Amino acid sequence: MYNFRTDYTEGAHPRILQVLIETNLEQEEGYGEDRFSMQAIDLIKEKIGQPDAAVHLLTGGTQTNLTAISAFLRPHEAAIAASTGHIFTHETGAIEATGHKVLAVNTGDGKLNPSLIKQVLDEHTDEHMVKPKLVYISNSTEIGTIYKKSELQDLSNFCRGQNLILYMDGARLGSALCSKENDLELSDLPGLVDAFYIGGTKNGALLGEALVICRDSLKEDFRFHIKQKGGLLAKGRVLGIQFLELFRDHLFFDLAAHANKMAELLKTELSQLGIQFLTESPSNQIFPILPNAAISELQKNYGFHVWEKVDQDHSAIRLVTSWATKEQAVKGFVEDFKKFNV
Amino acid sequence: MYNFRTDYTEGAHPRILQVLIETNLEQEEGYGEDRFSMQAIDLIKEKIGQPDAAVHLLTGGTQTNLTAISAFLRPHEAAIAASTGHIFTHETGAIEATGHKVLAVNTGDGKLNPSLIKQVLDEHTDEHMVKPKLVYISNSTEIGTIYKKSELQDLSNFCRGQNLILYMDGARLGSALCSKENDLELSDLPGLVDAFYIGGTKNGALLGEALVICRDSLKEDFRFHIKQKGGLLAKGRVLGIQFLELFRDHLFFDLAAHANKMAELLKTELSQLGIQFLTESPSNQIFPILPNAAISELQKNYGFHVWEKVDQDHSAIRLVTSWATKEQAVKGFVEDFKKFNV
Amino acid sequence: MYNFRTDYTEGAHPRILQVLIETNLEQEEGYGEDRFSMQAIDLIKEKIGQPDAAVHLLTGGTQTNLTAISAFLRPHEAAIAASTGHIFTHETGAIEATGHKVLAVNTGDGKLNPSLIKQVLDEHTDEHMVKPKLVYISNSTEIGTIYKKSELQDLSNFCRGQNLILYMDGARLGSALCSKENDLELSDLPGLVDAFYIGGTKNGALLGEALVICRDSLKEDFRFHIKQKGGLLAKGRVLGIQFLELFRDHLFFDLAAHANKMAELLKTELSQLGIQFLTESPSNQIFPILPNAAISELQKNYGFHVWEKVDQDHSAIRLVTSWATKEQAVKGFVEDFKKFNV
Amino acid sequence: MYNFRTDYTEGAHPRILQVLIETNLEQEEGYGEDRFSMQAIDLIKEKIGQPDAAVHLLTGGTQTNLTAISAFLRPHEAAIAASTGHIFTHETGAIEATGHKVLAVNTGDGKLNPSLIKQVLDEHTDEHMVKPKLVYISNSTEIGTIYKKSELQDLSNFCRGQNLILYMDGARLGSALCSKENDLELSDLPGLVDAFYIGGTKNGALLGEALVICRDSLKEDFRFHIKQKGGLLAKGRVLGIQFLELFRDHLFFDLAAHANKMAELLKTELSQLGIQFLTESPSNQIFPILPNAAISELQKNYGFHVWEKVDQDHSAIRLVTSWATKEQAVKGFVEDFKKFNV
Repeated sequence: MYNFRTDYTEGAHPRILQVLIETNLEQEEGYGEDRFSMQAIDLIKEKIGQPDAAVHLLTGGTQTNLTAISAFLRPHEAAIAASTGHIFTHETGAIEATGHKVLAVNTGDGKLNPSLIKQVLDEHTDEHMVKPKLVYISNSTEIGTIYKKSELQDLSNFCRGQNLILYMDGARLGSALCSKENDLELSDLPGLVDAFYIGGTKNGALLGEALVICRDSLKEDFRFHIKQKGGLLAKGRVLGIQFLELFRDHLFFDLAAHANKMAELLKTELSQLGIQFLTESPSNQIFPILPNAAISELQKNYGFHVWEKVDQDHSAIRLVTSWATKEQAVKGFVEDFKKFNV
Repeated sequence: MYNFRTDYTEGAHPRILQVLIETNLEQEEGYGEDRFSMQAIDLIKEKIGQPDAAVHLLTGGTQTNLTAISAFLRPHEAAIAASTGHIFTHETGAIEATGHKVLAVNTGDGKLNPSLIKQVLDEHTDEHMVKPKLVYISNSTEIGTIYKKSELQDLSNFCRGQNLILYMDGARLGSALCSKENDLELSDLPGLVDAFYIGGTKNGALLGEALVICRDSLKEDFRFHIKQKGGLLAKGRVLGIQFLELFRDHLFFDLAAHANKMAELLKTELSQLGIQFLTESPSNQIFPILPNAAISELQKNYGFHVWEKVDQDHSAIRLVTSWATKEQAVKGFVEDFKKFNV
Repeated sequence: MYNFRTDYTEGAHPRILQVLIETNLEQEEGYGEDRFSMQAIDLIKEKIGQPDAAVHLLTGGTQTNLTAISAFLRPHEAAIAASTGHIFTHETGAIEATGHKVLAVNTGDGKLNPSLIKQVLDEHTDEHMVKPKLVYISNSTEIGTIYKKSELQDLSNFCRGQNLILYMDGARLGSALCSKENDLELSDLPGLVDAFYIGGTKNGALLGEALVICRDSLKEDFRFHIKQKGGLLAKGRVLGIQFLELFRDHLFFDLAAHANKMAELLKTELSQLGIQFLTESPSNQIFPILPNAAISELQKNYGFHVWEKVDQDHSAIRLVTSWATKEQAVKGFVEDFKKFNV
Repeated sequence: MYNFRTDYTEGAHPRILQVLIETNLEQEEGYGEDRFSMQAIDLIKEKIGQPDAAVHLLTGGTQTNLTAISAFLRPHEAAIAASTGHIFTHETGAIEATGHKVLAVNTGDGKLNPSLIKQVLDEHTDEHMVKPKLVYISNSTEIGTIYKKSELQDLSNFCRGQNLILYMDGARLGSALCSKENDLELSDLPGLVDAFYIGGTKNGALLGEALVICRDSLKEDFRFHIKQKGGLLAKGRVLGIQFLELFRDHLFFDLAAHANKMAELLKTELSQLGIQFLTESPSNQIFPILPNAAISELQKNYGFHVWEKVDQDHSAIRLVTSWATKEQAVKGFVEDFKKFNV
């Protein structure tokens, strides 16, 4: 059984474990005030070219989203998200649990744009409705698509014009930035969004997300919010050490590039067999539409999500690759598929 | 500079890191449904002698407290805690952020008892006041004291009689259970409290607390709450692996015993020098009262909290030992103190 | 300028003001424990034929909805509502502000049914999503439609089978029950829903809604929730006196019948002029589709909401009648419309 | 049985009922946008000499406190209150239910001062604790005392220096301002506090409190918060009409002066009999310390709270007077007391 179910089926990249061991007995301050976290934060600021950014290391994606969004909004303000957005569908109402409505927008491709947001703004006219204030986007999105620089620039201009906060969930930012179709640099982000996070968990870390707050007015007292929401690890060094290793050189990007390469290989091979895809994904999640019979056979040897029914005889499945995906497994999957797809 | 500031200044016990490495490339389900977590949970149930308990692995103490307490209470219900209780003083209002008041009770020794709780109940007579519903205790307490079995039995009887939920914060449960003065077994707890957690972070893990829910009516849907509050790690294996190692044999208890031994050593040596202590602590936190001049000198070479002013010339400091504390450092501290304590 | 904008443009029915004056100097207990409130509650229990129901008098609809729903749900549980539902669209995220997601369902007619709810349940499969637990319906709905007894019976059976709480927002329950097409009795409701409220504000009271909790498990400690959410009036007599007068005889129903009669008159007259309606409303809100030019002219003399654009030249408007609507004004509106509708 | 239990045992002053009747059939906008509310708001701004203040009419004290405080604070910020403060003791955790801790301070007289607040600030040093941000005071206090102008000026200066929000609960502001010992004008308040409310319910209205927001940064979007918290009455005219009548001339002050006069009479008469008082109250709540035997007898004919036990044979009771208290009843109480106090 080989698992293409998620990008967090294995542990951490071995280099990360190695430094955990090497630094293990050094005595450090707690709660993220250790030297590793401080260095990792400085390194991230350097990589994004923003010495004034506020960078915080948190444990996971939902934790980061709920802490940031609840810290940024006043009680009557709401987030706008694609209806496929992680905060709308797969975080157990975590944002609502902090008191804020998430306004969902249907999109074909999981991406928001000024026109879609404008519709939401136009519908919210007075104090009997929530006040849309934050735009939540994911890059790559939950269905594998990515934002082009021009799309993000348009969104950014629109949000600034409307005094909206633009927040990017980067659980899979590595994969987005290393996509063949990507034209964004990590260092472009502070100029475009008000806050974003760099996902570690889905790109080779044991756990950890690095939240970057770019807009000054959102920075104040942020550590209070992390602590209050339960996200301040006593041994914050665990997060610091990992991000330090991921960004010390190109490891973060190398891992994402490998994941994308494996997804690309799957896509190319399946395409050559005439397979269609549910979404145009250039990142590490792909959604091939396969005959149900073949899916049943493949499930005997491979783990993956059956995403949605497409027609009577076909369904889209989700295949996710990661830094740890083996080329051999990808090839095996394709070979097996050929056998079952008669 | 040697640090006695906390019990989370070092990383994890080497055995834990070792198994993280050994298991690193095994593919596992996410979100705590991996085999390691399942095994760790089964092992904990076995150790506490409660096959029906619900056990969940969470990231940290505040996360565990806020998730459990908000899951257990209805909106108008409140927690009762000692005024030294961690949820009252050092969690940035995390419980209140979930909507619940914490009713603080002054105690001399950081411990609650039926009489103190009864006073709170007597004051809360109608719907203009919150309804006290959960009793929060820590063992060991924030000032190093521990609950004797008879004390806990009294509390337990009282809470059951009053239909109160009895919840034990076990961030330092290891140290409490391995204290010389302790007469409780881990397996006694399910018969005495409704829920408790076994602290990993402060006893040799990188991170992780194991919440044990004993009362049936509190178990339902608990994973929803963990996810909603941001505490469900994608790579839940990280927690499972650690608790599996801690409880595979006696490691959990060995580490706590070492910490206590080091604290005992400090206490004995300082007592012999005529030093008094702020609290009667038989666990890994001690609070010697030292001359301010000596404190200033010691701060040059040792990290510790100055806890409170005792008189014009003396203050209590907090010294915390851990699984990683070196006997040599303890002896060095005492020697240095002798030099400065003229 | 005559106003068809809402059913709360005038004050209270004169009989209500009269008893406010007559009872004004009687000394009463505060916070709803006065004799008038007690009598009103007993009277309502009698009218609904449910001596065991718990009845509470609250100030307004949003207050009632948020207090009840937050009291009934645990933190991870969500409400299901039509996308036109008041809690989803026009209460400024009040339910989310108490921590609960509202799952919206598109309907043609503003009404939920088992099939629509089942779709929501089917999509919510695990702890990464909220748990749908309460079904919120309005009768009459926000677009004037009403539930037939058989429809409500189906909903009720389904909800019981799925262990869902069925809650009815009765801001305009009077109008629904007095509709020509209605086949429900007030006394049917306790057998069909778990809780509902009888709207006073929109049916002749100055303010006030009577919440009826039928399911035993939802009754406990409810006054704590009212107080905590700010809904417990010091001079609760104001609410008691009004409901006592509304239900002392047939006043509540007479007022609603008048409102419906005025709406019916508008509908009949406009229909005879060939006007179509956006919804099939048999209650006190109707939505005629008028030429934009006529709308502009009518706005000079009449207040009403322009509800939505229908085509290039037509829009639906909302006309609301009430206990205080004058037949003369209705006839005047129709006459004026004829003038402008050339 | 005559009731001295509260100042809300009767209905409204007859003049208020009279205008409710006179204006009853005028058609008005809903949700506080009616002409009466607008005029009342303008009148209040004029009376306080602050054309730029934001004034909102709400239904009750708890509603006002929770709406204002939750609107003013960010999630990690806390309110400081006297331990006798209404929000700490008698609002069922309403502030905590919106997510904010209330930090209680013991005082002898129910009043806060810079020194007491400074202690709280000094104890809150970092992100592991909430951030004290709002100072909640009541005038008159819950134990009948009032703030002198100089005391309020000191508090105001201190709060501004510390960037704290100073908020005054004025449920009984009328009584405070009409006290013999008072040296504050209503128009002094905008210069001293950031927000306060003028209590109507306890001074002759059926219901209603007028919140005045003086600090610009606290004004934005406030109506969203009122609506979200359930406090926006559909027939807002009910509030507008009442405040318009209360402030049209001196009615508001006349009613409070009468209440004070009756309390003063009670105090003078009881003092002459050698009775001591629990607090030095110059307002409409007094706390005489009476023999338990006399209390038992008085309870047969008079309603009042037994406030606290003073010694074996004596308890303090609370007597509250209002605009409606009859001089004859006061005299009767004293006469009866003489009989029982042998």
